[in-house]
Amino acid sequence: MAHRIAIIAGDGIGTEVMPEGIRALEATAKRFNIDLEFTTFEFGSCDYYLEHGKMLPDDWFEQLKGFDALFYGAVGWPDKVPDHISLWGSLLQFRRQFDQYINLRPCKLMPGIKSPLAGREPGDIDFYVVRENTEGEYSSVGGKMFEGTDREVVIQDTVMTRTGVDRVLKYAFELAQTRPRKKLTSATKSNGISITMPYWDERVVEMAKGYPEIAVDKFHIDILTANFVLHPDWFDVVVGSNLFGDILSDLGPACTGTIGIAPSANINPEGHFPSLFEPVHGSAPDIAGKGIANPIGQIWSGAMMLEHLGYKEAGDALVSAIEEVLSAGDSQVLTRDVGGQGTTQSLGKAIADAI
Amino acid sequence: MAHRIAIIAGDGIGTEVMPEGIRALEATAKRFNIDLEFTTFEFGSCDYYLEHGKMLPDDWFEQLKGFDALFYGAVGWPDKVPDHISLWGSLLQFRRQFDQYINLRPCKLMPGIKSPLAGREPGDIDFYVVRENTEGEYSSVGGKMFEGTDREVVIQDTVMTRTGVDRVLKYAFELAQTRPRKKLTSATKSNGISITMPYWDERVVEMAKGYPEIAVDKFHIDILTANFVLHPDWFDVVVGSNLFGDILSDLGPACTGTIGIAPSANINPEGHFPSLFEPVHGSAPDIAGKGIANPIGQIWSGAMMLEHLGYKEAGDALVSAIEEVLSAGDSQVLTRDVGGQGTTQSLGKAIADAI
Ligand SMILES: CC(C)[C@H](C(=O)O)[C@@H](O)C(=O)O
Ligand SMILES: CC(C)[C@H](C(=O)O)[C@@H](O)C(=O)O
Repeated sequence: MAHRIAIIAGDGIGTEVMPEGIRALEATAKRFNIDLEFTTFEFGSCDYYLEHGKMLPDDWFEQLKGFDALFYGAVGWPDKVPDHISLWGSLLQFRRQFDQYINLRPCKLMPGIKSPLAGREPGDIDFYVVRENTEGEYSSVGGKMFEGTDREVVIQDTVMTRTGVDRVLKYAFELAQTRPRKKLTSATKSNGISITMPYWDERVVEMAKGYPEIAVDKFHIDILTANFVLHPDWFDVVVGSNLFGDILSDLGPACTGTIGIAPSANINPEGHFPSLFEPVHGSAPDIAGKGIANPIGQIWSGAMMLEHLGYKEAGDALVSAIEEVLSAGDSQVLTRDVGGQGTTQSLGKAIADAI
Repeated sequence: MAHRIAIIAGDGIGTEVMPEGIRALEATAKRFNIDLEFTTFEFGSCDYYLEHGKMLPDDWFEQLKGFDALFYGAVGWPDKVPDHISLWGSLLQFRRQFDQYINLRPCKLMPGIKSPLAGREPGDIDFYVVRENTEGEYSSVGGKMFEGTDREVVIQDTVMTRTGVDRVLKYAFELAQTRPRKKLTSATKSNGISITMPYWDERVVEMAKGYPEIAVDKFHIDILTANFVLHPDWFDVVVGSNLFGDILSDLGPACTGTIGIAPSANINPEGHFPSLFEPVHGSAPDIAGKGIANPIGQIWSGAMMLEHLGYKEAGDALVSAIEEVLSAGDSQVLTRDVGGQGTTQSLGKAIADAI
């Protein structure tokens, strides 16, 4: 049976890296005999917004809900549409309406990629950030009072539910169980944010009782960001709230030098709704249209999608193909950001060929 | 006229580094002919709590408010008193009741200190983090509903006021004006935290109108943490909310390798109340009592205090003395964390002698 994949390329370099993502997926599908069927959608881009006054058609949910996965490029083009409109009107809708309550990002030192950290080698850093993806600090509750006066007060609620906290913790503990080191780190700030964060800590303690084989520790977010830089080798699975997870899952790839090529998965683990796979990088208006964007983030996201669909071996093979091409270091093939003179296409093609 | 300084050493290594902080201040005061008068207080420590059932006496405000500055060690000893009690019962009270609405921390690559970032040299990184220190995410508004059930909901408000936001921005802009590069970076997350953060951005735009000579930019906190690692040389003055400032002012010193020795100032700029000067590091129960804690954070905080009291030249001289001793690299003098075999006292004494 075919797996139905919805393609939404979005804006800027999203439209350039997407064809390479598909090329790599097609090559992998062929080798592993997987049946993938792609359907492309034009909505979810700022150009669509300029034409229709909204980022998505009214029936987007109906159109997309039957797919097995969404393969997503990048959204946003601030000169056309303010970010909070383009993002809340598309990506953040998918995450919420499709209850993609897990945002998963690998932080891995890759061969041939220069880490900004001194003296770190591939193998030294290899962990996952698991981010809560639907509630917490990203709420729509709050407002303004005394607007426009000196007494102006602006309030926004952080909202945590037991359901929301427990399910992301459960996912993180189970992920930790599949890893050789079986270690979980919780991001908190219970010494300063004195209502929601102590609650988060309590739920971690409670959940840990069900996973006695997992070694659990926690750090306040301030010193945790410091430790990402100072001791990235300490981490295996790191779990955080929506905001803390957001921060850590940019900082982690920055520390491994992979911020331009890191992938991410927005997952509905029960499979009630499609999950969404997207590179960490944005639409990068500054380099859009030049054919020089690195397609690895898109391709690596495709590998995560394959794993999610049940093809771990195929996903691993695609990651290995990426590593192989990076190791080979052919400057005709690699894009500029990784020290070459190649194009989006030359790099995408090399990876597809390596499969 | 003597400047009256209140000394609160607190817990753990706070009590060990404080005497070295005083020694350095006394040496500097002598050389620059400054009259400092120290008064020591026992409260504000976990031992005080164990004896009295509270961190501070009821009249602490009266006892301390007439001082010209508070010189603070470190508070917290989780095995004796939970952190949220010891911190909210002392340090966070001072910050609020004395309206120390600025938290200022230098991030500076120091000679002889190993930065975890590859290829960075002293001079490359030299910026300040200005943190809002009284409101924002650190609120006491919120609560729980359906406690103990599956429907449990926990809410905490982030509260920003025009007064609170504008005054920290003003301080940051004026600090940027005193710096050669005249550059200010605002930490935001208005693409995700859609009520308070767009408000923060608006106030930055408004405030910037009064400072046309300052170059202003902004980054979302996720990519900003990444840029601290990737491009620390971009920054000059970075301003953020209470939480974002907290994160950045640990991450910044981590990137410069100075997290164990960085200072901080909690400032009431109008001088209506005493300001408070403390090292960034905590009480470090794991190394307490061994005489090996590095006293530079305490001494450098003393330098910030001198500058605050109007003695910029004396403060600069004390920072130079620290740099001199670090450059000399005498392993008999330096503590272990900076590659020596010396003690808290040997390092403190060397710095006092260098003045
Ligand atoms: C201890 C804690 C409450 C405090 C804070 O978050 O303000 C600390 O991290 C700091 O930065 O001084
Ligand atoms: C664009 C923004 C709203 C988004 C987020 O904060 O969730 C992004 O940073 C991400 O991590 O996918």
